[in-house]
Amino acid sequence: MKKRAVILVSGGLDSATVLAMAIAQGYQCYTLSLDYGQRHRIELDRAKKVSASLGAKEHRVVRIDIGGFGGSALTDRDINVPTEETNDIPITYVPARNTVFLSVALGWAEVLQAKAIFIGANAVDYSGYPDCRPEYIQAFQTLANLATKVGVEDAGDNGESIKIEAPIIYLTKGEIIQQGLKLGVDYSQTISCYNPRTDGKICGECDSCRIREAGFQAAGTPDPANS
Amino acid sequence: MKKRAVILVSGGLDSATVLAMAIAQGYQCYTLSLDYGQRHRIELDRAKKVSASLGAKEHRVVRIDIGGFGGSALTDRDINVPTEETNDIPITYVPARNTVFLSVALGWAEVLQAKAIFIGANAVDYSGYPDCRPEYIQAFQTLANLATKVGVEDAGDNGESIKIEAPIIYLTKGEIIQQGLKLGVDYSQTISCYNPRTDGKICGECDSCRIREAGFQAAGTPDPANS
Repeated sequence: MKKRAVILVSGGLDSATVLAMAIAQGYQCYTLSLDYGQRHRIELDRAKKVSASLGAKEHRVVRIDIGGFGGSALTDRDINVPTEETNDIPITYVPARNTVFLSVALGWAEVLQAKAIFIGANAVDYSGYPDCRPEYIQAFQTLANLATKVGVEDAGDNGESIKIEAPIIYLTKGEIIQQGLKLGVDYSQTISCYNPRTDGKICGECDSCRIREAGFQAAGTPDPANS
Repeated sequence: MKKRAVILVSGGLDSATVLAMAIAQGYQCYTLSLDYGQRHRIELDRAKKVSASLGAKEHRVVRIDIGGFGGSALTDRDINVPTEETNDIPITYVPARNTVFLSVALGWAEVLQAKAIFIGANAVDYSGYPDCRPEYIQAFQTLANLATKVGVEDAGDNGESIKIEAPIIYLTKGEIIQQGLKLGVDYSQTISCYNPRTDGKICGECDSCRIREAGFQAAGTPDPANS
């Protein structure tokens, strides 16, 4: 049996690149998206499209109502998505989002007997969220080793039954795009905006739009999603 | 403001006791139940009842479709709930369940600015699940410190912004029941069966029923749920 991996895909640029990397590493890929009441729900359609075009075996959307807790501009329509940069953790931060995402991925990985979970966390050109840092990913790896049946019964050679892979964590946005282009990612299928308009067009003003634009500039190539 | 805590309540005996303990410690308690497609959905009604009668401020049920992954007798109707003991991790284990539960609790705790999350994990009279062990709880504490906005911006005196409390982890079932009775828990409101009948009666044969029965015997008191 080909070794399996669960890939968290958001419909954005980073996770599309990570999926392409996992496929290039020979994994049979099961992609997972979370419907958590995000205002940018068009993400979920893009995640499906990207999964199919890169050759994922299966794409699943798991619905979870954490958006109902409020506290983030990405889920709470009473909070505006900011259009200016901040040095603090921004209001677009969704409480414990990556922890919830990785936990759900861990459950599916265990059932699939997958060997790895891939996440597009990035600690370079990112919005300053605490759950995108390398020490956070390492802490989740430790948890995963202790949390799972496979972790207890069959820890494997390196003691890591299910490896948490964050292959773009140290890459700049420009480097991510260059890697993805080499691996055949069609970035026109991806969307990165925190606050897309109802017709699916990006706002062009949010943190995520700004970081993406600068990334394509650094990569020396136009963004195909805007052409 | 009274200090807040999120309490994971399942409708069972352990989490009812933990809720009573958190209230006795002076917390304003927000109880959280997860609807994950469990076959013992009567749990959710019991969780609501227990929350109200012990004086929780609010009870929420968050729906998440991890049951659809399969792999457990508690969510997959093609797998029978076993009636005999096992030395292995049993088929009633739900992949990564406590990790998902704690993650969701962490998100809500962050929004509520709660100081603690209480979970009824128990490593003595339990079914042998990996995510009930003290080292697992400690690993989640480490993760929570790194994962959250409050953990980064305001780590507090002990470096633990949101404390993960597992107050019954070292207690026997008999001791848990004795503690709960002292704190006024009405165990007739709780249900512990993995496979209740459609009329809400317990099966009397599963691991959980056996452990509960032995616990009331050890506590030297009859189980009010069976009278």
